[in-house]
Amino acid sequence: MVTRRFVLSSLALATAAAALPVSLSAMAPTSDRPKLLIFDVNETLLDLGKLQQAVNQEFQSETAFKQWFGLLLQYSLVDTVTGNYHNFGQIGDAALDMLAQALGQPARPAAHKKEILTLITELPPHPDIIPGLTALQKAGFRMVTLTNSPDATVKKQMAYASLTGFFEQLLSIDSLKRYKPHPETYHSTCQQLKVAPAQAMLIAAHGWDTAGAQLAGLQAAFISRPGQQVYPLAPAPTLTGPTLPDIARQLIG
Amino acid sequence: MVTRRFVLSSLALATAAAALPVSLSAMAPTSDRPKLLIFDVNETLLDLGKLQQAVNQEFQSETAFKQWFGLLLQYSLVDTVTGNYHNFGQIGDAALDMLAQALGQPARPAAHKKEILTLITELPPHPDIIPGLTALQKAGFRMVTLTNSPDATVKKQMAYASLTGFFEQLLSIDSLKRYKPHPETYHSTCQQLKVAPAQAMLIAAHGWDTAGAQLAGLQAAFISRPGQQVYPLAPAPTLTGPTLPDIARQLIG
Repeated sequence: MVTRRFVLSSLALATAAAALPVSLSAMAPTSDRPKLLIFDVNETLLDLGKLQQAVNQEFQSETAFKQWFGLLLQYSLVDTVTGNYHNFGQIGDAALDMLAQALGQPARPAAHKKEILTLITELPPHPDIIPGLTALQKAGFRMVTLTNSPDATVKKQMAYASLTGFFEQLLSIDSLKRYKPHPETYHSTCQQLKVAPAQAMLIAAHGWDTAGAQLAGLQAAFISRPGQQVYPLAPAPTLTGPTLPDIARQLIG
Repeated sequence: MVTRRFVLSSLALATAAAALPVSLSAMAPTSDRPKLLIFDVNETLLDLGKLQQAVNQEFQSETAFKQWFGLLLQYSLVDTVTGNYHNFGQIGDAALDMLAQALGQPARPAAHKKEILTLITELPPHPDIIPGLTALQKAGFRMVTLTNSPDATVKKQMAYASLTGFFEQLLSIDSLKRYKPHPETYHSTCQQLKVAPAQAMLIAAHGWDTAGAQLAGLQAAFISRPGQQVYPLAPAPTLTGPTLPDIARQLIG
């Protein structure tokens, strides 16, 4: 349970962080080597290609997956600001209905939607992930996940992708009932792992996620996967690189 | 300036509203005729077709506008939850850069982006809007706008579309620095117009907007324009109809 005091102090921290000039947020990694690496999961560690193909094929459109994932992210924030929490699987299911309606197609039966959504638990890691995580583990970094997917889903995802062993904990926003990039999601993770926000680094392939972490006072590394961008109106990420081994090299030095 | 007490009471109200069973939110319009009608602007009153055509043509893609508008809505919520406010025009400009990068195209020069974005102030009303507003005005309803666009933009938009005369005030979220569907946006409007939330009705063509208003304790009417859908995980709108005159008939009885 999040206390009112924690909510207020988190908001105050976020506001203070937002007021910092960009240059103060971009700290040299050598002098501020993070004590904790917090990994986003979907699109950062895992390749969503299989799910993308299934959604595009189902709706007979090359842009259906992008539209669906956009609705999923938008409505996770709609739920966050309105206090109307549903887990990522439930919003994903609702987003399939909204997508069908947007495309003028009939809604899919529940069992069929479940079949599509189950694919999120059967995704391979991007090819750069195991080499990157191995290098970071050898260099002694503490590593956890922080995903918008529910607890049970991230456990299945990491087991399927054979990544569980790299992480001290598999954390999700599910118990907090607020989605990233809300500052509490990052603060709660730091609090649980007993690390100050400035000593933690979020690693993600989404600009909204690195922006949120930095505005909450954490460091952030952006993996610039094709089609992904940083948010131009937020501080630049502390580190940027095309792959995780590239980020790892910058962190290990 | 929003006080801490107002923030807390708004959050408490929103949480209380979120806990209500759906049936309590769907009030019969005859017994609860709203005293104030709050109109969304973009896509609800105004036809974005001209802007859609310009963005699709600029990026040579039939789905560019949808992607751009999706980014604009997503990042307005990213700003809201991270306390990193920029106005809708600034986010719209940043979203053009993100869209270019997502499509693997070069960023457009600032002047060219401005030219595209200026089109939002030169949009016609949907053909059903003037008949609908006229009927509601004759029936004695108080009417205001509440848009995510900045104050100066909505003034230009309403003047261009010859709609200014229908409204008691042209309100925007710009002074509050939080985007719809945050409960404060609706509560602040009700407070300014001295109407209790339950006596106000939001009218919009976006499911996230009607959902947000209802979860904040207002009534809501959904104009089901083609390609628009309600959010299946929120209470059903108080009223639904394909056009504003259809909603007006239900309100006037």
